Amino acid sequence: VGDHLGVESEFDLIARLRSVVEGRATGDGPAEVAVGSGDDAAVTVPAGATATSVDMLIEGVHFRRETAPLRSVGWKALAASLSDLAAMGAEAGEAYVQLGIPEDLDADGATELADGMAAAAGECGARILGGDVSRAPVLTIGMTVVGHAPGAGELVTRAGAQPGDLLVVTGELGGAAAGLLLLDRPELEAAVGKARAEALRRRQLEPTPRLGAGRALAASGARAMIDLSDGLAGDAEHLAGASEVRILVDLNELPVAEGVQEVAAAAGIDPLELAAAGGEDYELLAAVAPESLDRVTRAVAEQGAALRPIGRIEAGTGLALTDAGGERNLAGFDQLRSRPGPS
Amino acid sequence: VGDHLGVESEFDLIARLRSVVEGRATGDGPAEVAVGSGDDAAVTVPAGATATSVDMLIEGVHFRRETAPLRSVGWKALAASLSDLAAMGAEAGEAYVQLGIPEDLDADGATELADGMAAAAGECGARILGGDVSRAPVLTIGMTVVGHAPGAGELVTRAGAQPGDLLVVTGELGGAAAGLLLLDRPELEAAVGKARAEALRRRQLEPTPRLGAGRALAASGARAMIDLSDGLAGDAEHLAGASEVRILVDLNELPVAEGVQEVAAAAGIDPLELAAAGGEDYELLAAVAPESLDRVTRAVAEQGAALRPIGRIEAGTGLALTDAGGERNLAGFDQLRSRPGPS
Repeated sequence: VGDHLGVESEFDLIARLRSVVEGRATGDGPAEVAVGSGDDAAVTVPAGATATSVDMLIEGVHFRRETAPLRSVGWKALAASLSDLAAMGAEAGEAYVQLGIPEDLDADGATELADGMAAAAGECGARILGGDVSRAPVLTIGMTVVGHAPGAGELVTRAGAQPGDLLVVTGELGGAAAGLLLLDRPELEAAVGKARAEALRRRQLEPTPRLGAGRALAASGARAMIDLSDGLAGDAEHLAGASEVRILVDLNELPVAEGVQEVAAAAGIDPLELAAAGGEDYELLAAVAPESLDRVTRAVAEQGAALRPIGRIEAGTGLALTDAGGERNLAGFDQLRSRPGPS
Repeated sequence: VGDHLGVESEFDLIARLRSVVEGRATGDGPAEVAVGSGDDAAVTVPAGATATSVDMLIEGVHFRRETAPLRSVGWKALAASLSDLAAMGAEAGEAYVQLGIPEDLDADGATELADGMAAAAGECGARILGGDVSRAPVLTIGMTVVGHAPGAGELVTRAGAQPGDLLVVTGELGGAAAGLLLLDRPELEAAVGKARAEALRRRQLEPTPRLGAGRALAASGARAMIDLSDGLAGDAEHLAGASEVRILVDLNELPVAEGVQEVAAAAGIDPLELAAAGGEDYELLAAVAPESLDRVTRAVAEQGAALRPIGRIEAGTGLALTDAGGERNLAGFDQLRSRPGPS
C-alpha cells in the first residue's frame, strides 16, 4: 500500500484481496450469483425473502490492533454481522466489505484481515461478493451481509414476544468478556490455566455466529429473537422494547461459560457482570411459548447447541434481573465496555 | 453527540436519523419491505434479480467539510452509489448507511447529512432501510444500495462490448470537475458568471444518477455499461478490460458541459482534461451495436437525457483517446484527482 493508497496500488490490492476471498468461496449459496465482484454491482437472484444487516467497525472504537491479530479482526467483523442474520433465523448468503486502510497497514496486513474474513465466510457458508477499498485515518471495516429464507414469514424479529412466553438463551455466557479481560491482563491466565484461557480469548477474538441454532429456533416456533452483541441485559431490553413486554431474567439460571467464574474472581469482578452485561458472546436470546420449549430445545440441540430457559415474559415494559437477593443492577460493567475492546 | 457517542446518545441519534430518513420514504419500491429498520436486519422480498453495490466515503480522502455542505455530502454519498445501479440498468431499491461520526460533528450536523441522503433517496425512488452509527476519527460514510430487475438477464455488466460496437455516453462531461475547480478557486466564477458557476458546483456537490437512462439503455440493447465516476478515460479502460476489447474515443465528439470551456481557460487547464479525466460526472458510458443506436438514443431521450456516440470498439486491448492531432495522453488531470475533492 506504500505511502498512500494511490489509484494503481488500490487496484492491485483489490485484486489481491479478491483472490483471497474468492478462493475461499464455498459451493452454492441460497441465492444464485449471476455477477460476482468486479462489476458496478454484484447480481444475485434470491429465491425468497432476504435479510440485510450493516455494521461498521472502527479501530480504536471497536477493536485495537495491539491485542487483536488482523486475522481475528477480519473474522470477527464478518462473524458479528452474520450473527444478526442468525438472530432472524436466516441462512447466511452474501457479504460485502468496505475497507478503509490506514498508512501503517501494509498490503500483507490487509491480506491477513481478508484471510480471516474469508475463513469466517467459509465456516458460515457465506460468500464475499464485493467491496470497496479506500485510504482512511484508521482501520475501518464496513460489513453488509444478506441472509435468505423461503419467505418473510419464516424470519423472526425482535417484536413477537408475548406475556407468558419463556425466555431462552443458547450456549454459554460471559466467555467473550472473560476473554477480553485475559487479553487486557495476561496475568489473569494463572486463574484458569493456559488452555482454558486460550479458549476464552478465542471466544472474544473469533466468535462463531449461531446460524444453525437461529434457523432451528425460527423453524420450531421462536416468537422473538435477538443476538447477544451488547450483552444480555442490553439486548434483553431491546427485545422487551420491540415486543412491548416486560422481561424477567433469573440470574441464577444463566449458563455461565467455564472459566468465567475463575477469571472474574481473579479480576475482582462479579462473574454475573461478565455473563449478563459483558457482551459479544453472540449467543441467541429468544422468547418461546412454554408448550414449544421441548420442541425448540430438541431442534437447537440438533444444531449442536444447548438451550436454557433463563426467565419469562410478562405484560408491562422494561427488564428486571433478579437473583436470590432480589433485583440486581448490572450497569457496573458498562465502564469496561465503554472503552475499546481488542476486537 | 456531546463529548463522545455514548451508548445512550447513540440510540437517541439513531432514532433522530431514522425519523429523518423514514419520513422521506416514498411509496412502494420494487421489493416488498417486510421488516424495516430497527431490528437485527431489514427484510425484503425481491421479485427478481438484485444488484448490490457498496462504497465508503472518508473525510479528507473523498470530501472535505470546508467546501462541501453536510447536506451535499449526504446527497452525493447515496447518489454516487445509486449511479452504480444505474450502470447495471437496475431500478433503485433499498439503501443502508453506516455512519462514523467524529467528535466535532454534532447531532444537528449528522441530521443535515441524513437529510441530504433522504432527499437523494426521494429523488431517486430509493428507500433507506437500515444503518449503523458509531464514533469515528473523521466523518465516515458507508453506503450499500440494492437495485432490482425482473431477471439477471435484464442487467448489463461491463463485460459485453464487442468489436464493431459504438461507444456512447449520456448527458455532458466535465461539469463536475469544473465545479470542483470553482469550489477550490472561487475567483474562477468570473469566467462563467454566478448562475453557471452555481450549476457547475451543484453538478459536483449533488449529482443525479442516470437511473432512468440506465434502464432505458439496458432495455433497448446496450451490451456493456459503466458509470463515469473515475472519469471517462479511467472508466473506459475498465470497460475495455472487462470486455476484453480495445476502445477508441474521439475527443472531438465529447459532449463538454456548458461553462467547462470557460472555467478551464481561466484556470489554464485543457477543457478536455476536465471532460475526459475529471470524473464524478456520473454519466453512463455504454457499448451499443450500430444497428441499435437509433433505438437506444430514442429510449434514452424519453428519459430526458441526450446520448452521444463518442467512439468505437475494436478487437484488441486498452484505450486510445484521439483528437485531430492524433493520440492524446490525459494523465495530467490525475494530479488534481489524487487530492481530496470537496465531496
